Amino acid sequence: MKLFLTQTSPYARKVRLAAEQLGLTGGLELIGATTTPIADDTALVAINPLGKIPALVLDDGVLLFDSPVIVEYLDHLSGGGLLPPASDPERWQTLRLQAVADGILDAALLMRYEVALRPDRFLWREWLDGQGRKVQRALATLEADILRLKEGAALNGIVVACALGYLDFRFEELDWRTRCPGLAKFFDDYSARPEMVWTAPRAE
Amino acid sequence: MKLFLTQTSPYARKVRLAAEQLGLTGGLELIGATTTPIADDTALVAINPLGKIPALVLDDGVLLFDSPVIVEYLDHLSGGGLLPPASDPERWQTLRLQAVADGILDAALLMRYEVALRPDRFLWREWLDGQGRKVQRALATLEADILRLKEGAALNGIVVACALGYLDFRFEELDWRTRCPGLAKFFDDYSARPEMVWTAPRAE
Repeated sequence: MKLFLTQTSPYARKVRLAAEQLGLTGGLELIGATTTPIADDTALVAINPLGKIPALVLDDGVLLFDSPVIVEYLDHLSGGGLLPPASDPERWQTLRLQAVADGILDAALLMRYEVALRPDRFLWREWLDGQGRKVQRALATLEADILRLKEGAALNGIVVACALGYLDFRFEELDWRTRCPGLAKFFDDYSARPEMVWTAPRAE
Repeated sequence: MKLFLTQTSPYARKVRLAAEQLGLTGGLELIGATTTPIADDTALVAINPLGKIPALVLDDGVLLFDSPVIVEYLDHLSGGGLLPPASDPERWQTLRLQAVADGILDAALLMRYEVALRPDRFLWREWLDGQGRKVQRALATLEADILRLKEGAALNGIVVACALGYLDFRFEELDWRTRCPGLAKFFDDYSARPEMVWTAPRAE
């Protein structure tokens, strides 16, 4: 299987952490992409019309995305129910938690595009503030639910670690640790895993 | 169950079409929200920190989002495997198709925010063009795969109809029908369904 990714994409990191948890890392061929919302990657858009990563191409050529679909597919390859739990109500709690963590990332990515991709003269402060409020409220929700995060499904840790790792990488000034001491402790412990080290985002 | 929504949200329409297909419309209490990325809806952010709709609140108070999670939950309530197929490879084809249709909507929503929400002086043409290319490429992919769309799972029709309906509602000038005659025929047929009429987007 070929996984199109960038080293900075938190959604791609999620897929790599999931693959490692499932023992599937060896079966993934990593293909680096260079894509932004204003500059298409020709090889990538040839397989994924939306030009988004991660994108997984199966050995028979079938394309899968986005990251929740890829994670569920990898889980299925390993027998199912290992990452998103198969049973009610854990399944819904975990998929909801993934939506919260991905929602933090969606908002953070839009903030990143606003400050780093968009020319300064077109920066709109209200947009940035609105996305920032989403991130803060979602972090507070995760902090309030820290016990479920730690004791729940394996996917919980993966999705939250990817979100927090991206905030550290791009928004150091956000200082989420002060307001979220439970998340800070969780993330420090989780970051000791070897796969967290070799999937860590780095500037390209 | 309470479904927070707006009448203009294509993702909320997807959930309503799914509920109707599953015979669950009567069990959904619809709660209108007023939310934009720069103006939070107080009642909505109290339940969903990301301030996004659709959001489903179960009778025991549990919150579910985003739309793929809600659709899968409703499907589960009805026995499972009716909308996203349970079996391989149909399941992955359908979830991929949902990701394409939702990706069209993600790009179209960003275009809508750029032209209708953001003050004109901050509009960035390259961003608008980049999102527009995503929409066009994804439409071409759907047009090329029109047979699978028509003959595949029930969810296929729902997600594509929501995407096309939103383009008609907000981007009439896009004129997707000329380039995608197969999709145009599909959409005209699909739009005759009663639930397509009463879930049609309208300005609020």
